[in-house]
Amino acid sequence: MSLKTESGNYFEDFYVGQELIHATPRTITEGDVSLYTAFYGSRFAINSSDTVAMNMGFEGIPVDDLLVFHIIFGKTVADVSINAVANLGYAGGVFGAVVYPGDTLFARSQVIGLKETSSGKTGVVYVRSQGRNQHGEMVLDYVRWVMVNKRDAASEAPTPELPELPGLVDPEHLIVPDELNLGAYDTDLSGSTDLFEDYKIGEKIDHVDGMTIEEAEHMMATRLYQNTAKVHFNQLQQESSRYGRRLVYGGHVISLARALSFNGLANAFKIAAINGGTHSNPTFAGDTISAWTEVLDKTAIEDREDVGALRLRTVATKNQRNAEFPDKRDDDKYDAHTVLDFDYWVLMPR
Amino acid sequence: MSLKTESGNYFEDFYVGQELIHATPRTITEGDVSLYTAFYGSRFAINSSDTVAMNMGFEGIPVDDLLVFHIIFGKTVADVSINAVANLGYAGGVFGAVVYPGDTLFARSQVIGLKETSSGKTGVVYVRSQGRNQHGEMVLDYVRWVMVNKRDAASEAPTPELPELPGLVDPEHLIVPDELNLGAYDTDLSGSTDLFEDYKIGEKIDHVDGMTIEEAEHMMATRLYQNTAKVHFNQLQQESSRYGRRLVYGGHVISLARALSFNGLANAFKIAAINGGTHSNPTFAGDTISAWTEVLDKTAIEDREDVGALRLRTVATKNQRNAEFPDKRDDDKYDAHTVLDFDYWVLMPR
Amino acid sequence: MSLKTESGNYFEDFYVGQELIHATPRTITEGDVSLYTAFYGSRFAINSSDTVAMNMGFEGIPVDDLLVFHIIFGKTVADVSINAVANLGYAGGVFGAVVYPGDTLFARSQVIGLKETSSGKTGVVYVRSQGRNQHGEMVLDYVRWVMVNKRDAASEAPTPELPELPGLVDPEHLIVPDELNLGAYDTDLSGSTDLFEDYKIGEKIDHVDGMTIEEAEHMMATRLYQNTAKVHFNQLQQESSRYGRRLVYGGHVISLARALSFNGLANAFKIAAINGGTHSNPTFAGDTISAWTEVLDKTAIEDREDVGALRLRTVATKNQRNAEFPDKRDDDKYDAHTVLDFDYWVLMPR
Repeated sequence: MSLKTESGNYFEDFYVGQELIHATPRTITEGDVSLYTAFYGSRFAINSSDTVAMNMGFEGIPVDDLLVFHIIFGKTVADVSINAVANLGYAGGVFGAVVYPGDTLFARSQVIGLKETSSGKTGVVYVRSQGRNQHGEMVLDYVRWVMVNKRDAASEAPTPELPELPGLVDPEHLIVPDELNLGAYDTDLSGSTDLFEDYKIGEKIDHVDGMTIEEAEHMMATRLYQNTAKVHFNQLQQESSRYGRRLVYGGHVISLARALSFNGLANAFKIAAINGGTHSNPTFAGDTISAWTEVLDKTAIEDREDVGALRLRTVATKNQRNAEFPDKRDDDKYDAHTVLDFDYWVLMPR
Repeated sequence: MSLKTESGNYFEDFYVGQELIHATPRTITEGDVSLYTAFYGSRFAINSSDTVAMNMGFEGIPVDDLLVFHIIFGKTVADVSINAVANLGYAGGVFGAVVYPGDTLFARSQVIGLKETSSGKTGVVYVRSQGRNQHGEMVLDYVRWVMVNKRDAASEAPTPELPELPGLVDPEHLIVPDELNLGAYDTDLSGSTDLFEDYKIGEKIDHVDGMTIEEAEHMMATRLYQNTAKVHFNQLQQESSRYGRRLVYGGHVISLARALSFNGLANAFKIAAINGGTHSNPTFAGDTISAWTEVLDKTAIEDREDVGALRLRTVATKNQRNAEFPDKRDDDKYDAHTVLDFDYWVLMPR
Repeated sequence: MSLKTESGNYFEDFYVGQELIHATPRTITEGDVSLYTAFYGSRFAINSSDTVAMNMGFEGIPVDDLLVFHIIFGKTVADVSINAVANLGYAGGVFGAVVYPGDTLFARSQVIGLKETSSGKTGVVYVRSQGRNQHGEMVLDYVRWVMVNKRDAASEAPTPELPELPGLVDPEHLIVPDELNLGAYDTDLSGSTDLFEDYKIGEKIDHVDGMTIEEAEHMMATRLYQNTAKVHFNQLQQESSRYGRRLVYGGHVISLARALSFNGLANAFKIAAINGGTHSNPTFAGDTISAWTEVLDKTAIEDREDVGALRLRTVATKNQRNAEFPDKRDDDKYDAHTVLDFDYWVLMPR
């Protein structure tokens, strides 16, 4: 391999406290927003209509929270997970300043934990990644941990350091945009009259529809996010992999599930935080994704009469109908159809 | 099914005079325009070049008329046709105010007719749908009728009410934008020297080229239009349908045929009205679409020396060459290759 | 065939000195830029971030040079190569004024050479094509030559006239944008610390990654460029062709190779000139493209301390790994895996 070619970091290259400045800042444009709609068909009015968004107090259409997530995540891949075996989890994800088309996003990560695995061939790396806009304001802050290959199995294990990970984002830490004003919220245009008060803890919602994924779609999306993980793009290489196929980027499934969740959650206009997420099985082109959601909790927001937060758990499955809310098996493991278990806070008008 | 999930309207839910306000207004952007070009490869100069459009009197590139149609149509699906068995026809479609990137489109429909079908299991619903921009100006007004499932075959039939449908849009009702000025129209840049006077009633034009459709293309397009009809997206469900395949949204074929028609109609710069249209056979991914056009009529426009209107009938076929203008069979029915028969008015410089 | 339908120029229709004004000027938008990212996943910071681009002296994100190339090339197809058998080569390609979203591009070509081939059925046409922006400034000027069918094999051969073609663009003719200022160039954000001085003539760089191409991707890209060559789109027609498949537009492969070359050439921020290029084998959907680059030459730029130029040769192959820099065979011919041999000048900070 040429010395000029970046092969990315192996487990030995990380140390706790390490700061990673990720390359290629990204100006998000209306073109990215249109592509996002074309990939997932999302219908949340706030992300579709200038008029609706301005009526809610924003200066224009905010960029979908998950598009922000994918852009920031994508930047981290070349430095954090290009040599990863598995993306193990997310925690403590908080969305900050609202992102508009024209904003430029920058990403940095800090290594906050390291632990070699028992095999001695890999290690788990915990990073806290932060996205900022051109004004230096935080737009997204989250932790993820990945299992990364060692360059050399014989190299010595570092002293294990494990970060404290929050089980969920404390509702007090949710960031509600100052400019948000739901005084003139219009449920005709949003697509549903079900608001904060109408949802009950424990309630389950079947999102009914399904979407079949094509190779061209997930690859275009993942390239738009400038995510360089080879497993998504290189069929020649994947043919000799465990699955023999290209893998769909897990975030693509999160966005599909969120778009499907419009039917039943049309007024969940913003993701405020990501408590955690598990990609429980790989997704491939040809799979049909369905989703259902359980309301885990609900909470008022301090000093706000017009908006509350729902803690949701959205489960996405492939190639089966969801009418009976298929969930983990009795042994608390996922069956082969479940591809995503995603725990997050949304904002909803009261 | 959860009570929060919208299952859409069944035949029993409609009544004549009913007003439907469709959700999710849509701000059209330059991103949507680029995707439209990527889906169909349209080459009409007015929709491609600021310079050409401004030279024709517009303030910038107008959004393609069919993109406006698809956006408005898409909004109506969740309320009108999510439980439809078939999209039966269009009539009286008139384009109004020119739409520019940045405009936000809103859609409403009125139910103007109802008739149960003889089977007792379905009924035909006639709606007049109207798209407006953020200034309240009409951008598109058209009638369509669909065959919709009844929730319960045992429910009583309503008194049949059938609207009067125009066979075609009267040329006097065509809306020519006030700002249009063809004084400096440049046929080098438009791609053809054939203008209004050069077309003869009865003339047929073979558009020569063909386009093969991929699943990713029609699904991305249909999601961009926020059209939620399941038959386009859900292979798992479609496997047990009559065709075993996802169906291509009929409007996708209209746009392909229009783009192909550039070769032979390069100066037909604007669709002014839709007289009617029939999707005579389903289209699937893998089909290659070709098109030919017959000039049905031509007319001057009152008080305009610079522009006339041609009434065109564009026929799209799949998986055969069009050099011999394949048309209906002797019994006036369509053969299995014909997928679209579209009757419309275009504006053309004189 | 209808008289209205353009069948394009055959060999007999060309004459040396002929001026061709190509139809459909094109305003490039942020939507096009987003699609370009989605097609190729390019990560060069200058084309991704407003902040980075302005820091380099530009007024915003410049449009990728190859997107400019594809748009201009696409305009020439209907007049120059719609009846072509083969695209034989490029020479003397120079990029001029920087293109920004919002600029409108116009294309013209001059026929500069003609020679009937020995078969008597085809001839080689040499054209010099030029793209200009709405201010009349040259944005791209290049020569290409194509083998075009004769309408009638019996028609008389013209007197052969062959243009003088430069083997490469003289470095003195490279156009460095006046506004370029690399005083504050940031290698953290660009993704590599390897600058002009770090590259040696003769050095080879393996770009490691591979991209598998889907039909939907190359067709959407080629339609975005309004390139109408039938071989890319019409499977029905291609089934009876030599390959039985749709062909991928050669420029799509150039853009993929350039995007892959980021890994090893992250600071090669601009293509200044195209010396030549050979599409040595056809590319089809399903092929996985990899690339490697050889540094052919390097040169300072007159009156500039901050930037130099590298002459690069990027070779793209399909369906094999590039770790051993697979090149021409001993007989100087390409093996069946090599799809592109591209010779160009890039600018790089010193």
